[in-house]
Order: sequence, then C-alpha cells, then structure tokens
Amino acid sequence: MKLNIAVLSGDGIGPEVTNQAVKVLKAIAQEFDHSFVFRSADVGAIAIEETGSPFPDATLKLCKASDAILFGAIGDPKYDNDPSAKVRPEQGLLKLRKELGLYANIRPVKAYDELLDASPLKPENIKGTDICIYRELTGGIYFGEKTLSKDGDSATDLCAYSRVEIERVAHLAFKAAQGRRKKLTLVDKANVLETSRLWRKVVTEMASQYSDVTLEFLFVDNAAMQIILNPKQFDVILTENMFGDIISDEASVIGGSIGLLASASIGDKHAMFEPIHGSYPEAKDKGIANPIASILSAAMLLEHFNLIDEAAMIRKAIEKSLHLEITTPDLNSKYESISTSKVGDFIEDFINHPK
Amino acid sequence: MKLNIAVLSGDGIGPEVTNQAVKVLKAIAQEFDHSFVFRSADVGAIAIEETGSPFPDATLKLCKASDAILFGAIGDPKYDNDPSAKVRPEQGLLKLRKELGLYANIRPVKAYDELLDASPLKPENIKGTDICIYRELTGGIYFGEKTLSKDGDSATDLCAYSRVEIERVAHLAFKAAQGRRKKLTLVDKANVLETSRLWRKVVTEMASQYSDVTLEFLFVDNAAMQIILNPKQFDVILTENMFGDIISDEASVIGGSIGLLASASIGDKHAMFEPIHGSYPEAKDKGIANPIASILSAAMLLEHFNLIDEAAMIRKAIEKSLHLEITTPDLNSKYESISTSKVGDFIEDFINHPK
Ligand SMILES: [Mg+2]
Ligand SMILES: [Mg+2]
Repeated sequence: MKLNIAVLSGDGIGPEVTNQAVKVLKAIAQEFDHSFVFRSADVGAIAIEETGSPFPDATLKLCKASDAILFGAIGDPKYDNDPSAKVRPEQGLLKLRKELGLYANIRPVKAYDELLDASPLKPENIKGTDICIYRELTGGIYFGEKTLSKDGDSATDLCAYSRVEIERVAHLAFKAAQGRRKKLTLVDKANVLETSRLWRKVVTEMASQYSDVTLEFLFVDNAAMQIILNPKQFDVILTENMFGDIISDEASVIGGSIGLLASASIGDKHAMFEPIHGSYPEAKDKGIANPIASILSAAMLLEHFNLIDEAAMIRKAIEKSLHLEITTPDLNSKYESISTSKVGDFIEDFINHPK
Repeated sequence: MKLNIAVLSGDGIGPEVTNQAVKVLKAIAQEFDHSFVFRSADVGAIAIEETGSPFPDATLKLCKASDAILFGAIGDPKYDNDPSAKVRPEQGLLKLRKELGLYANIRPVKAYDELLDASPLKPENIKGTDICIYRELTGGIYFGEKTLSKDGDSATDLCAYSRVEIERVAHLAFKAAQGRRKKLTLVDKANVLETSRLWRKVVTEMASQYSDVTLEFLFVDNAAMQIILNPKQFDVILTENMFGDIISDEASVIGGSIGLLASASIGDKHAMFEPIHGSYPEAKDKGIANPIASILSAAMLLEHFNLIDEAAMIRKAIEKSLHLEITTPDLNSKYESISTSKVGDFIEDFINHPK
C-alpha cells in the first residue's frame, strides 16, 4: 500500500517521540513491502515563531494532500501564562480539526497487565479495563461564540450543538460498540443543559438502528466518579467535546502512564493520529519522553487503513518492550537510562527481526 | 453564642441523618454553654406533597430569619421516573441557592487514615490528602440562557461570568488558603474559553492582596488527572460552577466513602451546611444511613461562626468512632449492626464525656 503521511511534530517533546513513530512505520513499510512517504510541516508554537500562525496555510495544504497525519504535540508555557496573547499554539490544533473536519476523537484506555502496579488505582479495580471513548471534537463550547465586554469585566462562551453534529460521531460510537462488548454510555448533563437534552434525544432515537447495542446514560459528574470507582463497567463512552476532554484525560490515569495512550481524530475525508500527552516542554531534548504513545498512534493509523497485521506487529513489539522493561524512566525500575530513541530502536529491531 | 438554625431535613435519609447532626449540636451547646435554637421546615418532595412547592415561602422565610441552615437531602424516585412532572424536588435546592444568594460551595475532601483501604486509590497515594474545593455556585453555564430551535434540531447553553461573581468566591478561597497550607489552585480552561481567561485575569489581579498565598493554575482536563494521580499536591482548589461540579464529585471518591463528605454553601448573608450524598430513598428508615457527613456539616457550621474548639471536638469524636468502627454498615466490618442513631449517640456521648 502507498500512503502519504504528513508529519506534524509540533512543540516540546513532539518531535522526538514522533521521530520514533516514523522510524517504526519505516520498519513496517520495509518488512511488509509498503511505500510510506513522509512529509513534515510546522504546527503550534514553532509555527507561530516561523510564520505568525499556529497552523499555516502550507501545513493545511500538506494535510489535505495526505492520506493521514501523524501528529506530535503542541503548546508552550510562554503562551499559557500570558492571558493577553493574541495567538496561541492550541489554536493550531483547533483550526486543524475544524479545517479537516475531524469531528470524532477516539481514545482507547486499556489497563496493561504489566503495568497494573503503576496505576494510582488498586490493581483489582482496574484489571481488565478496556474502554473506548468517542468524543465529539469540532462542536460545543470550545468552538462557540466568545465575547468579552469592552471593560473586560464580563465574558461569555456559547455551547451549541446540532443534530447532524451529534449523529455523525454517534454513528461511529454505535458501530464501535457493535464490534466490541455492545454497550454504549452517553455522558451528558441532561438534568441541566439544553444541549445535553438534545444529545440524549438524538442518541436515543438512533438506538433503534443499533438494537444489539445497550444504550445507557450517565451525568458527567457521576461519570467522573464511576470512571475511578468501577472503570470495568464501561465499554464505549460517547460524549460531547468538553466533557470528553475532561473524562478522557481522567480515564487516562487508569493505565498507569499517560505515555502509553494514543488517539485518533477522524473525519469523513481525513484522519489524524497522535499521542494524548502534551508537549511536556520540561522534558524536551532530554531523551526521557516515552515514545510508546506516539508509536501506538502509528499502530492506530495502520488499523485505520486496515493494515491489521502490521498494527498487531507494533503492538506485540510494544508489549515485549513493556515486559522486558525496555522503557523510558517513567516506567522503568530495572535499567538506569533507556532513552526515547533507544525504545524506538528496540521496537524497530523487533519488527525487523521478530523473535 | 446564640444561633438560630433552620433545619431542612428533606427527603429519604435526610431526616434521620440530620437528626444526628442536631443531636450532636445540642450536646455541643450544652458542653460549651451556647444557645442553639432549631426550627424545622419542609423542602423537596415532602414539601411538594404538603404545599405543591419544593421550596415553600414559609421555608424561605425561616431560612432568611435564621443564622444558618442545616440541610439534609432531597429527591424522590417518584419524580425521577416521571418525565412529565412539572415540579421536581431538585428545583427546591436551586431556588434555595438562588434566593439566599449562596454563591460559594465549599467541599472538603480528606483521606482518613482509618479508611485508606476503602478507597479505590492506592493508600500510599492518598494518605494525608486534605483538599478544600471552592466551587462558584450561581453562575456559569448551568444558569446561562438556553435555547432550542423550533425544529428541535439545535440547542445552545450560554456560559457567562462577570468580575464580581468571580471576585466574591475567590476572596473566600484565598482566605481559606491563608488559614491552611497557603496554596490556591485555579482550575479553568483558559487556553480555550473566554470566561476562563476572565477567571484567570481576575484571580491573578487579586493575588497581590494575598501575597502569602501561592497561586497556581491548572487546566480542568489536567486537574481531572492530577486529582487522582497526586491528590496531596492540592490545598485549596477554586473553580467555576460546572468544573466544580465535575471535579468535586470526582474528588469525592478519594476518601473511600461518600458518607463522610460534607459541604457548605455560603453567601454574603446566609450559609447552608449539608452532606454531599443524596436522599438515598432505598435506605430510608432502615437505620443504615451513615450520619457522619451530616454531623461533619454541623462541624462546618460551627467553624463558619468561628467556634473552632467546638468543631474540633466533633471531628475528634468522629475520628474516634472511625477508629473503633462505631460506624454504619457501609464502613463497618467489625460489628453486625450499628445504626444511624447509634453512631449519633456515640458522638454525642463522646462530647458529653470526652475521653
Ligand atoms: Mg485534554
Ligand atoms: Mg454533582
């Protein structure tokens, strides 16, 4: 298969972890006789510095011309603590999602047996946890109209949703549930919010098309408790943009390391794959960033194009690296210093010489 | 000190747990020579049955004439399962907060040594956790304008905040931090929301008045992780209404039992104290409801009036009861049946005869 892959490494540790994912994809291409062509472009703080925009036109053009996007991370503390900053790295990500129509964010959360002890939760509570969160990604309050009064003393953000925005991501979530344990939990705040009541109405109507899927409802505040109290009760979770942001980040702690979690952002024409962790600027260029999430996002990319054996090979290599503790210091109590690129080398080598 | 206390026991287990709090406050009054006058009024489902309103005028009048309100719980399955119900018990609570101007919700979260094993989190991660969450309670998206299009296919909710709404709750949070470990964490989503940027701006400006308090910022999605990963890092958390709803319910799992968590809702003129648990109708009149959250809310009431020694006596009695497992079945593996009122009796007795 020939794939044109846009590589948007971004800020902080983005480049170093994305390099490992590219390295691994190149090994897969060689081993399975595919042709993957990688082209890079700027996004985030680095793009602001070079062009003034966090998501320059050249980057958009490359993304539109590519089959898939491999994304690193964006964000720089310089912008976080400056409330007057007019341009922000995060705007690059929001613009990218919107311009490419990436309306569904998919976040698998899995408790790896090798890492049960690394979790802040008790092993017996999380063993076997396997959740897939579908978060609506281009609507809701993050994209609604914002106002700031002239005197700067009052502000508003509008949360808006329409039937079509809800339906398209809900279809993906229902279908995912059909291929899994056939349970879908809609997380909302329908006892208070009008938009949540719309979500509940639309999703309830759709349920008749997926009669093999059990549909349940949970208020977001209760969901925030249940994810910690009993994560094994969940199969597929569907929710709106901001609730999904909060709930999926919360759920990311279950597995014991944010360095192991990948995500996909899917639209009708484009697809982007990235680790869930941020740009972690403190760790930049120290070789301590865990590349596994980025490498797992490469596996999700392959699965998106139905390259199932190829993805399985990467997952096997990752499990091997976890088992042998060929991991960066965040997961490693055995070896002194295994660097970001050393983990990438191990996984590359496993693919070239599967044991 | 003379205090007029309005007792709004409400529905379900509300009356039986609130009775224990009243019993304990009476013991404190006797022991410390105060005069506490208790007057009861209806709220919730029981008020709907008697008057047609979940928050009758007579109740409002009593609340306004009192120094403090001791609140139980409201809610009845009869209304939950009737989507056509025009009047709901929960409306009583919203009306009460609004009419009395209770703009700050205060939620302490503590990990009791005796109950570390009951938590879904690992004991070593939570031992020593002592957080106090200040949630804005009468603004934001829960109270903003709502719209539903005529065709029913699109909906909006408006999140609005003004400087004065932020300042009044932030002052309370800064002051609380001054009396504690002097750290205040503002939870927001300032990288995306205009209202969050207003929060950050206003709170940052206020920080100069509280130069002994260290002010930190955390995005809400990151906060949802950090509360589980490392709850001990927090002292006072300040946040807007909806984030506070989610974050405080999430944090409630840390201690291992929702039956131990109390809250205060504070305004400029009025103050209300209540357990965070609901009316739990399945447990009504069985003697199994844990009264400690309600008794702790009585301790918060005393602290509100600067009766520090009195509150400390209650807390000491509660810790003794936990230590000896003089607790209701939810926490008790030692004794067969210690009822709601037996726990109240033990704490009353401890206050009358401190050992
Ligand atoms: Mg997030
Ligand atoms: Mg809540």
